[in-house]
Amino acid sequence: MSEILINSTKFKNNLDLIAEHIGDKDKLALVMKDNAYGHGLQEIATLACAYGIKNIFVKNESEALKIAHLFEHITVLYGRICNDSPLNIHVSINSMDNIHSLEPSRCVELKVNTGMNRNGIPREKLQTFIEEILLKKLVLFGVFAHNGYGDVSEQSFQDAQKVFSEVKEEVLYLAEKLSFKIPRFHSLSSSGTLRSDKIEDDLVRIGIAAYGYLSNTFDIPLSKKLTPIASLWADKICEQSLKKGSKIGYGGKTVLEKDTIISTYDIGYGDGLFRINGNKPSLKTAEGYIILPVTSMDCFSCESTLERVCVFDDATSIAKLFDTIPYEVLTSLSPFIKRSVI
Amino acid sequence: MSEILINSTKFKNNLDLIAEHIGDKDKLALVMKDNAYGHGLQEIATLACAYGIKNIFVKNESEALKIAHLFEHITVLYGRICNDSPLNIHVSINSMDNIHSLEPSRCVELKVNTGMNRNGIPREKLQTFIEEILLKKLVLFGVFAHNGYGDVSEQSFQDAQKVFSEVKEEVLYLAEKLSFKIPRFHSLSSSGTLRSDKIEDDLVRIGIAAYGYLSNTFDIPLSKKLTPIASLWADKICEQSLKKGSKIGYGGKTVLEKDTIISTYDIGYGDGLFRINGNKPSLKTAEGYIILPVTSMDCFSCESTLERVCVFDDATSIAKLFDTIPYEVLTSLSPFIKRSVI
Repeated sequence: MSEILINSTKFKNNLDLIAEHIGDKDKLALVMKDNAYGHGLQEIATLACAYGIKNIFVKNESEALKIAHLFEHITVLYGRICNDSPLNIHVSINSMDNIHSLEPSRCVELKVNTGMNRNGIPREKLQTFIEEILLKKLVLFGVFAHNGYGDVSEQSFQDAQKVFSEVKEEVLYLAEKLSFKIPRFHSLSSSGTLRSDKIEDDLVRIGIAAYGYLSNTFDIPLSKKLTPIASLWADKICEQSLKKGSKIGYGGKTVLEKDTIISTYDIGYGDGLFRINGNKPSLKTAEGYIILPVTSMDCFSCESTLERVCVFDDATSIAKLFDTIPYEVLTSLSPFIKRSVI
Repeated sequence: MSEILINSTKFKNNLDLIAEHIGDKDKLALVMKDNAYGHGLQEIATLACAYGIKNIFVKNESEALKIAHLFEHITVLYGRICNDSPLNIHVSINSMDNIHSLEPSRCVELKVNTGMNRNGIPREKLQTFIEEILLKKLVLFGVFAHNGYGDVSEQSFQDAQKVFSEVKEEVLYLAEKLSFKIPRFHSLSSSGTLRSDKIEDDLVRIGIAAYGYLSNTFDIPLSKKLTPIASLWADKICEQSLKKGSKIGYGGKTVLEKDTIISTYDIGYGDGLFRINGNKPSLKTAEGYIILPVTSMDCFSCESTLERVCVFDDATSIAKLFDTIPYEVLTSLSPFIKRSVI
């Protein structure tokens, strides 16, 4: 049965490297949205809890409820939550509707648009939103942004950080004026954190770097020390002794040039491994076996007799082949594949 | 909250068309592997049961156990099962290992390689495998193949069917010689069924056609009458009033040519919607809004103010854009997205 192995030592090493860079382990919050970037929410949550992580970010309430007991503060980045959800589950505010759906005492984190122009409230509406939050007797637990320029070297990264500094100043001013407790501030994710010499915020939100990757388009020395923690393994379904000229798979795309033993393995695009149709350069397993096109929904063939092959232990190659980023390769892995921590 | 709507009327119409073509509704078995091709296993199982489907095929034991109570015969296509699994769950045999892992009385379906050279036992080993199945006191419930040439017009399709006819003959001969009950025979999936004027087998395994698609590369008249049953919907997260020149998303890939209201919607590649990075032609929502690159893990932006947009109601366009087939677009949809039957 196919399996994703999660290397706990590599995970700890990645977290150690990041924590050392930040200089304060308590500032390290982990992003576990989308099934912990495909690594398995429960498995990563257990490891993160053991490491001492106290603050995490998840996609929605459904994810939060599965692991709420393991952390002090869980922030839901998207969607609404039920009023009876545990009170350590906090809600991100992107619109007035978000605010109006909540009952008093819930902690909220107000997201401000600092130039990525995706989510978050307009900076000019900061006071209006904070007043509404206070009026509804919600707790303004955090004010945050997402710097969408962490991976690129241009000035835009600094511009967004400057906007967030101004947001902070305004919030501090409002806190005094309107008498509310100063919220926590955070704006940086993996690249932004690792490219910054000093972390001015109260928290950084580390996602992809904890899992061993970074998408920087310029040099960030620390990125080279990170190690991917997940490897994907497929088990043999059966073996075929085939003659020269035999065709394999749908439409007979692969044609054998000599007598060959071919095995099928139990991972396909239905498990989230991008479909290989032969129109791109070859993809090889970690052992070097070419994954023969066309791959199926539930299996692929390759010239191997091994009982188990490692489809990948680093998502970078397959990401490049499909003109995407490791994030997509990882989050695409079906949650139904078994995850095992080693 | 994003949602997949499953149109029960369209599903029934597709099944009616297929059943009419076959000429015998009882011969129509449904393939529900990979979360019912991404449509939601529970939801499709409930509809299929109500329609009167008695025989189904799923990926593995985990899927079978979720819906075993709804059908007479559930065949697991891959992997092993526990000995205490309900006895209406049957196991596909692709290797001797499969046989040896089972306890007496379990129904098995023997898969034979008829030229796709992917899964299944070699045809020459038919007698050896059947003898081993009988020796282990398993029930040979079915003998089947998968014709990998259903979508292409060439002779290979007929060649594979001829091999399967010969397999049938041999099994009938062995049944008499070794005194076992004649098993059921099946070899055709959607395209193979819909291109065949007469169904000689006891059963056809219908997957993609039931969900409204076919991947035929030549004309199969019935394929035009099938209708996709799933539509993917995303809800607004927030709205931004942006000035001309504003950049949107990671790295600021999209730059606005005029003052525009842009909304973000709650589906991203983490939900299984292929990541759009701007290197391909545009993808539009069903309403015609361009999904602006670069899309994020949990959201995308477009020039719309609608509270909800339909990302697609037909997976064909996005499949073409990504040089793949609708199957992959559909099976990639995260099982965590809510499915609602309408």
